[in-house]
Amino acid sequence: MPSYGGIDLGGTKIQAVIVNEENSVLGSARRPTPTSGGPEDVTKEIAAALRDAAKAAGLGVDGDLNLAGIGVGSPGVIESGNVSTARNLPGWEGTFALAAALESALEVDGISIEIGNDVQVATDAEFRLGAGRAYESLLGVFWGTGVGAGLILDGKSWSGLGGAGEIGHIVVEIDGARCTCGRRGCVEAYAGRGAMEIHARKLQEKGRHTDLFKLMKEHERTRLTSGIWERALDQEDKLATELIERAVGALGAGIASAMNLLDVEAVIIGGGLGVRLGDLYAKRIAKAMQPHLFADSRPPPVHVAALGDLGGAIGASLLLRPVA
Amino acid sequence: MPSYGGIDLGGTKIQAVIVNEENSVLGSARRPTPTSGGPEDVTKEIAAALRDAAKAAGLGVDGDLNLAGIGVGSPGVIESGNVSTARNLPGWEGTFALAAALESALEVDGISIEIGNDVQVATDAEFRLGAGRAYESLLGVFWGTGVGAGLILDGKSWSGLGGAGEIGHIVVEIDGARCTCGRRGCVEAYAGRGAMEIHARKLQEKGRHTDLFKLMKEHERTRLTSGIWERALDQEDKLATELIERAVGALGAGIASAMNLLDVEAVIIGGGLGVRLGDLYAKRIAKAMQPHLFADSRPPPVHVAALGDLGGAIGASLLLRPVA
Repeated sequence: MPSYGGIDLGGTKIQAVIVNEENSVLGSARRPTPTSGGPEDVTKEIAAALRDAAKAAGLGVDGDLNLAGIGVGSPGVIESGNVSTARNLPGWEGTFALAAALESALEVDGISIEIGNDVQVATDAEFRLGAGRAYESLLGVFWGTGVGAGLILDGKSWSGLGGAGEIGHIVVEIDGARCTCGRRGCVEAYAGRGAMEIHARKLQEKGRHTDLFKLMKEHERTRLTSGIWERALDQEDKLATELIERAVGALGAGIASAMNLLDVEAVIIGGGLGVRLGDLYAKRIAKAMQPHLFADSRPPPVHVAALGDLGGAIGASLLLRPVA
Repeated sequence: MPSYGGIDLGGTKIQAVIVNEENSVLGSARRPTPTSGGPEDVTKEIAAALRDAAKAAGLGVDGDLNLAGIGVGSPGVIESGNVSTARNLPGWEGTFALAAALESALEVDGISIEIGNDVQVATDAEFRLGAGRAYESLLGVFWGTGVGAGLILDGKSWSGLGGAGEIGHIVVEIDGARCTCGRRGCVEAYAGRGAMEIHARKLQEKGRHTDLFKLMKEHERTRLTSGIWERALDQEDKLATELIERAVGALGAGIASAMNLLDVEAVIIGGGLGVRLGDLYAKRIAKAMQPHLFADSRPPPVHVAALGDLGGAIGASLLLRPVA
């Protein structure tokens, strides 16, 4: 049975999986995304993560990966194997031929490499294999460093002119908080883990107490990861609780706005924070949506991504096997 | 050549047209929407408007309408000829069998009567015959008593589970101004002509000067129509200018949010106020969108609805002639 590689290229980590034709995960590996350097350095780490995963799957021990194809879910604008303006990736302001660079880094001439949008492939994975299997239309919301969405309409991905799904940049407060994108009042300005970390640091500098950064150091992190936020919530850190509640409020308004416009069947919450905080917070997001939903007598079901952390990488492997 | 009837059933007026197979308007008529009574009274006025239009077209003088079919664009939830919870129509909280009632009011047994969503049929008309002909995907925004949207995605209408297009209820200010829908911070709370009239009246009662209500009386209106707003703007009424600018700001944020999510090719501005205020205000809306657009290097073209005031009624007549 042929095996496929799938890569989820995120701002914090690179997740690799090897799956078989039936989408069983044969092996997986994770590496931190380089925080300096450029696309070449990121490509090297992608190749290394994929080799780690292949090794875990019992493949490629002799150096030959022997995969039927490799898919990569990447941030940024994707066009036939090239990736442009990938925010949250180091030195990636321009256009980089990722597919070609990966082929060369892996020394796998002629293998089929497909690049897709990270959020869209994760949504496709939930639609085809996960929490969205029962629906023909859905909104996948990925809550992590940033906030992005994937859309399934009438059984197919919708990407518009290539830039659809920016639910993190739905405006919930005109002239509101500064977003990491430079604009104001976006959902991501309140709910993105990146913006939340900046906000927490500023409030701490102003004298507010929080254990967030102490926990970060104790766990040898350089950023406030989803795990750190979860720990801080668990020990009832007041500032962390406040910021997460503010994030949930912004997500509720933004997702309800998207539902008012699109009226799809269901919402799926994924991403680092979404998966980590799980069902309890999916329920809180649903509750925060309710006062803004136009069709409030039939609120959509809100599910947590069933494929969890691996959804993006599994979804990337599906790029090689599009639905007929 | 067969003729078709088209009705645009609005909160303020009922617009009827008779068109031929080539969508040339043979006759048209307009009646005010009853402000009291119930669905039966509205149905009578629809029938009367249609007879007026037929007369203007030189049809139906002997009482026989002789139409190949009639289409109605209606607010509310539409299901196989029934209309439910049509806001802005008198006494229409429940479900009413409009198609059957209209057939009986017109005494036209067996004629084909189709009911569609008012905003969606107006969008379809712009897509098939008007400002949207060049595109395969677009967002039609109808700015009038309320604010609604129609969506064309991949050459087809998108209505979700039946309630899509509520762009007027995208939240642009969490806990913001009270909307006529009862919620807070919706686009329509700032931009809907209904909400704007309530707001203008309150500010006048608080001592702010405006000629809006004087103009309304002079022109023998009972509401602040689009024409009254236009006159007030023309004579540089300060309060009217302020409220319209606030509306444009909310529309800009809401439409940009929708574009960030959907990334369609173009925006078309219709509706009573949209058509009346025309190109100058379409440009202002485009300018108000710009600071919120994620893909700000390629803002979508923003057009005024080319079919103007008759677009909704012409679009309703297209319900009888779906695209193959």
